[in-house]
Amino acid sequence: MGEFDLIKQYFTRNKRLDRSDILLAIGDDCAVTQVPTHHRLAITTDTLVCDTHFLADICPADLAYKAIAVNLSDLAAMGATPRWVSLALTLPKCDHHWLSLFSQGLFQILDEYDVELIGGDTTKGHLSLTITAQGFIPQQQGLFRHQAKVNDLIYVSGYLGDSAAGLDLLLNPKSSECNSAQHYLLQRHLKPTPRIALGKLLLDYSQCAIDISDGLLADLSHILNRSQCSTEIEVDKLPLSQAIQTEYSHSKALNFALTGGEDYELCFTIPENRQTDFENMLKAKQLNCYCIGKITSQSAENIRLLHQGKTIPLPKQIGFDHFR
Amino acid sequence: MGEFDLIKQYFTRNKRLDRSDILLAIGDDCAVTQVPTHHRLAITTDTLVCDTHFLADICPADLAYKAIAVNLSDLAAMGATPRWVSLALTLPKCDHHWLSLFSQGLFQILDEYDVELIGGDTTKGHLSLTITAQGFIPQQQGLFRHQAKVNDLIYVSGYLGDSAAGLDLLLNPKSSECNSAQHYLLQRHLKPTPRIALGKLLLDYSQCAIDISDGLLADLSHILNRSQCSTEIEVDKLPLSQAIQTEYSHSKALNFALTGGEDYELCFTIPENRQTDFENMLKAKQLNCYCIGKITSQSAENIRLLHQGKTIPLPKQIGFDHFR
Repeated sequence: MGEFDLIKQYFTRNKRLDRSDILLAIGDDCAVTQVPTHHRLAITTDTLVCDTHFLADICPADLAYKAIAVNLSDLAAMGATPRWVSLALTLPKCDHHWLSLFSQGLFQILDEYDVELIGGDTTKGHLSLTITAQGFIPQQQGLFRHQAKVNDLIYVSGYLGDSAAGLDLLLNPKSSECNSAQHYLLQRHLKPTPRIALGKLLLDYSQCAIDISDGLLADLSHILNRSQCSTEIEVDKLPLSQAIQTEYSHSKALNFALTGGEDYELCFTIPENRQTDFENMLKAKQLNCYCIGKITSQSAENIRLLHQGKTIPLPKQIGFDHFR
Repeated sequence: MGEFDLIKQYFTRNKRLDRSDILLAIGDDCAVTQVPTHHRLAITTDTLVCDTHFLADICPADLAYKAIAVNLSDLAAMGATPRWVSLALTLPKCDHHWLSLFSQGLFQILDEYDVELIGGDTTKGHLSLTITAQGFIPQQQGLFRHQAKVNDLIYVSGYLGDSAAGLDLLLNPKSSECNSAQHYLLQRHLKPTPRIALGKLLLDYSQCAIDISDGLLADLSHILNRSQCSTEIEVDKLPLSQAIQTEYSHSKALNFALTGGEDYELCFTIPENRQTDFENMLKAKQLNCYCIGKITSQSAENIRLLHQGKTIPLPKQIGFDHFR
């Protein structure tokens, strides 16, 4: 099987494409698309490399799911509606079983979020994937790292640390069979949820968000750096799942929550005077978000951690960084 | 040096960005861009993997140049004006000398074509690059593989086979020092020219083009497949450079021209009744293109090679294909 047959068999679908924003998808030198009037285009690229970002024996369907999920999460963090992805897939060999599972996982998440695969490249080499995902943002709106303001409240969209705990279980299994808490944590690591619906809702309440890919403190520091401000985080308010509390000591769980990457929850700011409206909207939509602190002074890029009102030291390693 | 410092040092420029189509480039979860009204967006992705697409000792500036060039060539083949690229770079280590040269080559070609780097990803692993390039096409225009029509003339935009000859010289050097013909062939392999200006001019004359990345016959067969037609190519009309004719036998040169990949010339069709206008435009613009054959019957996806009016056999291997 050659490259073109491979693309045809695993990455082309025969369904009729009923989308006015895509004039041409796979099969030419480029895809040709259209952005609706009064909208901007958000574009993000993420690479997952075998042995760096995932283990070689990962289920190919989970790998595809996660590769798409992490890119959609970047779109969620801008308040964008995802529309198209390109997939650059580098494979050591043409393994039909692997490709078949990969393709299933890929189209499962693409269908879930109404996203189309519009192109890509298939090459031979060490296993890795690069996804470029694109989505629309209404003009004059958007969630940006540089838009945090003093006195804004800081929220996160869900439990923190679960993904890092799941990775820990993957690397150091506690037993041959998973209990339900362990299963939940593993799933949070393997199949993270991009917070697309929440990102879009936030456009009416917030101007600032990031998705937690490197760890809460690391990602929060990007906001502080770009917005030139500081923050206080109340560690007692960090949302911890029942599962992480069952499986890990409180201090270990807290460390995962502060520094563990890949939760793909949104961390965002809400101006104080919009808090009531925002909380009412959450209630109406049956969504849970957690207020964990606030933006303090206009300077310094400082993170102050508070436990029962007292400052506690920051963990030494605050996030994952390639090349460090 | 960590990932963020690396991006800051080598991939962020301090120049003021004076482009109304880019609202936000590197530094947030996504880039945010805008497509002008009455335009469509062409999107292409290409991966270059070390040891598959290039040799490990390649000059990093040449590598960056070529990675961008091959993506811009895909845009040229649609008649698009290139605007933005994202770069996903996977590196085995943080090598400052390498990165500095790479970054120079990258911004050299980006500046040459007025293209902005709007984002990407930097990860650790086996050396490879994935570029996603995007450009604008005026609404109702564009060059597509499926638009070849019976009796259309087939043109190519420049000499064929030079890149394959350059690769051959790189793998099997004839002597320790290059003569000028060898130097030219090497350069055609290392620094191909994306035919952007020609692609845009073609919008008024043609509806069908492809860029020659896999080899003339392989790429032409994509057009025949998508357009459901056949073709006759007169091998005596294939444009061969002085250099390839000096360095190789005629039959070897011809084989490179027919099957060698990576020339990144455009192969396109011109309706018979537009030929005079088209040739006049070429003369006025001092551009050279070469008519090498025509589209014949509406079926079969057949390529017939003619030499002095007689059919000759096709080469056995007609192009490069991963996984075959």
